[in-house]
Amino acid sequence: MKTRKTLQLIILAFVLTIVSSCSSKVEKENTVSTEAETPKEVKDPLPSWQEGPTKEAIKSYVTNVTAKGSSNFIPVADRIGTFDNDGTLWSEQPAYFQLFFAISRIKALAPEHPEWKNKQPYKAVLENDMKALMASGEKGLLELVMASHAGMTAKEFEGIVKDWISKDIHPRFKKPFNTLIYQPMLELLDYLRANNFKTYIVSGGGVEFMRPWVQEAYGIPKDQVVGSSIKTEFVMEDGKAKIIRLPELDFIDDKAGKPVGINKFIGKKPVFSAGNSDGDLQMMQYGDSNKYPSFQLYVHHTDGEREWAYDRDSHIGQFDKGLDYATENGWTIIDMKKDWKVIYPFQLNETKN
Amino acid sequence: MKTRKTLQLIILAFVLTIVSSCSSKVEKENTVSTEAETPKEVKDPLPSWQEGPTKEAIKSYVTNVTAKGSSNFIPVADRIGTFDNDGTLWSEQPAYFQLFFAISRIKALAPEHPEWKNKQPYKAVLENDMKALMASGEKGLLELVMASHAGMTAKEFEGIVKDWISKDIHPRFKKPFNTLIYQPMLELLDYLRANNFKTYIVSGGGVEFMRPWVQEAYGIPKDQVVGSSIKTEFVMEDGKAKIIRLPELDFIDDKAGKPVGINKFIGKKPVFSAGNSDGDLQMMQYGDSNKYPSFQLYVHHTDGEREWAYDRDSHIGQFDKGLDYATENGWTIIDMKKDWKVIYPFQLNETKN
Repeated sequence: MKTRKTLQLIILAFVLTIVSSCSSKVEKENTVSTEAETPKEVKDPLPSWQEGPTKEAIKSYVTNVTAKGSSNFIPVADRIGTFDNDGTLWSEQPAYFQLFFAISRIKALAPEHPEWKNKQPYKAVLENDMKALMASGEKGLLELVMASHAGMTAKEFEGIVKDWISKDIHPRFKKPFNTLIYQPMLELLDYLRANNFKTYIVSGGGVEFMRPWVQEAYGIPKDQVVGSSIKTEFVMEDGKAKIIRLPELDFIDDKAGKPVGINKFIGKKPVFSAGNSDGDLQMMQYGDSNKYPSFQLYVHHTDGEREWAYDRDSHIGQFDKGLDYATENGWTIIDMKKDWKVIYPFQLNETKN
Repeated sequence: MKTRKTLQLIILAFVLTIVSSCSSKVEKENTVSTEAETPKEVKDPLPSWQEGPTKEAIKSYVTNVTAKGSSNFIPVADRIGTFDNDGTLWSEQPAYFQLFFAISRIKALAPEHPEWKNKQPYKAVLENDMKALMASGEKGLLELVMASHAGMTAKEFEGIVKDWISKDIHPRFKKPFNTLIYQPMLELLDYLRANNFKTYIVSGGGVEFMRPWVQEAYGIPKDQVVGSSIKTEFVMEDGKAKIIRLPELDFIDDKAGKPVGINKFIGKKPVFSAGNSDGDLQMMQYGDSNKYPSFQLYVHHTDGEREWAYDRDSHIGQFDKGLDYATENGWTIIDMKKDWKVIYPFQLNETKN
């Protein structure tokens, strides 16, 4: 059991990437945007959301806690929104996207490591043998993470991630991974920021894997990303300052690690938190304990046609305990198939045509 | 040597507090303040700084990197300023203020621990025997930290710190610790923010010791504080979400830990960094390696009359290697006695009277 759990954590300690279709968004923290100054009724802030109870619940909450004179008014400084990434802001099937990155990286490094041809878990990666890869277990996957994510400077790693995100494509959609972000969630992030919420990513994915692209993808700046990390070390080499990435886990930002990460990095409890799996439950329980009215939003993957359908039995993004807890506690659950008009930004044009 | 170094780290892992004299400052991140829109020549942004090369260097730098069309222009998103706290933003003598907090806390808890009367290092604290306290060494001080900083929820700890900062007074100045912040540095923080720099604290002090009061003191929000930390754990007790503080060190944000902390929490390299001791050297070397023109500012404690005078041989805030490196590399060094008209905000009125 421990091994399976740790394995899940390690797979989680993999994951994440970008979207270029919504370029140059700038986080409008603590400023009243022009959008917010126009009456909210005039323009639908969530045009990709179907009318219905989910959309209504979100809008009611935001209106209620931001209206001047409301008994539920939340001061701007306390409008903290925390968003899981994998399966909440972008897709996570058929495997966490960070795993695709790791595999790509191993293949790129293979010429320098001829011994990998006959050594697991590298052999499995090089032969695209996912079954053998998974059979390598916790130890094998951890070795893969370290071989692909450590041993270079932080700056070099950023360049490697940027290069990958600009080149690699998703096996099903044949598009860059950063185009597989959820249009309705982008609108939600914008809507919250227009109402002076400060939006953060709180993900099991690697923090330095996310930072190179999340500003462009989600309008979330680098210092508003909480994620899993490996240890690093500062060195001065020939008078040059460097941060070296070490092959050792530092922090796993998943499950009970999420509220710990939020407390460590943000220092405030969220009032709005969104996730899609059991790994997000504790973050949402933490938000639910806020002294202010809080909103917990779960993405339920119900759309096997346009995206993927999975929940209780999935190895990736398992949504079982969270589904029960959310239902019992009256949290809002997005039915992806019913609630979202489109899934990805590139479908906006397809819909119009 | 190891013991002494670790002991310094642990003492560092103590330190910090508030200032009420400059209330309700709000960080003006990424917004052009009205102040910035008026010509800078009209109003002196640094009125508590004596005219001279130090003040001139700061103003020249800021003007140079923010002027549109300047070849040294730094985009707003990359205007990151990192400030040490102890000895840089507030005083640190005769001992790190966080040590006063720990001692106060031990005394408050003593009635529940009658055994402390005969047990070091508690006995030393209860008898105000600093010599015996220091003699308890690394192990003793670590025990003291854990007894005073762990074993409660994060929320409870915040309340304890707030209570302490509002009540305890400094032995020399007979004023709350949060009034012993440096007026010239407050002006510098404001000046940088007015020029769209984002200001962070990067301190060896405890992050959860600082967060309760730094917004009010420095206008720096909770999520822009990087510091040392102990481990925490998330638990659900009777349906209530809690973060419990554990008696185990998590991260020491000092020396080479500072750039590591900056990379971990901020994800960007500073262009402006300020410190006062050897513990800040690596942070400033890291900033110095920025692709943009950077500014490194050292506070040299030269004013034994109005504050304290100490540097190379001090056990607290030792400034030896840093002083040499700064001199060799042409960094700006504040001569507190010569460069600052006043030290603390409460002296502003005294000066006027």
